[in-house]
Amino acid sequence: MKISRIDHLGIGVQSIDEVLPYYEGVLGLKCYAVEEVADQKVKTAFFKVGEVKIELLEPTSEDSTIAKWLANGGKGVHHVAFAVEDGVADALVEVEGKGVRLIDKAPRPGAENMMIGFLHPKSTAGVLTELCEPKR
Amino acid sequence: MKISRIDHLGIGVQSIDEVLPYYEGVLGLKCYAVEEVADQKVKTAFFKVGEVKIELLEPTSEDSTIAKWLANGGKGVHHVAFAVEDGVADALVEVEGKGVRLIDKAPRPGAENMMIGFLHPKSTAGVLTELCEPKR
Repeated sequence: MKISRIDHLGIGVQSIDEVLPYYEGVLGLKCYAVEEVADQKVKTAFFKVGEVKIELLEPTSEDSTIAKWLANGGKGVHHVAFAVEDGVADALVEVEGKGVRLIDKAPRPGAENMMIGFLHPKSTAGVLTELCEPKR
Repeated sequence: MKISRIDHLGIGVQSIDEVLPYYEGVLGLKCYAVEEVADQKVKTAFFKVGEVKIELLEPTSEDSTIAKWLANGGKGVHHVAFAVEDGVADALVEVEGKGVRLIDKAPRPGAENMMIGFLHPKSTAGVLTELCEPKR
């Protein structure tokens, strides 16, 4: 597996509207896209900082993973996504072969037209970790 | 304040030695520096991913901020550090003027020969946020 860069940080928030003044007014970043990911029951808002995207994640349903994470005291960075060069499918097979527990056994569609796969934080030193690549 | 990029992610761990096989063996990243920051009572280990550094933070004392964070259930990404182009001192003044609560009223030395200043997570949508720049 070859990781080329951090693609994005996923940050869980109760309300994108509430935190937008901080991201735009204080940090001076510009929200360039808002997208709902029905599959994951979240609304997302994207900002670019250098080569990394910040993805705000607002739950659209109480049974969304992000809603549960927030309800359990989660705050701040929810996950870190690495861009892989040689395909998410192969990368998942490779890391599973090294003993890493997977959340996704195969790539699935994510926001921003990406294919994504999550590794379990029990295997990643506590950081919920996503591998991703643009859809081919 | 002009943020140019994410300088690093600070990740809290109980033991750098224990997580090194994951970072090097699974993710394929290379630890290029280990440094103790006596001031913050942490040992740090650095990796580079694209333009971003990953900084593992292991407490060297039970009264270190990171030790307390881990003891309170903290795991994964402890803080996000943005590189600012126009000086940390000016940036702290500017964001405080916009109502942001500061942890550091003035820049102080951090690892990797940087000047750093932390913003309080109560003012930053839950993300403990650092501003930094190379020492001049």
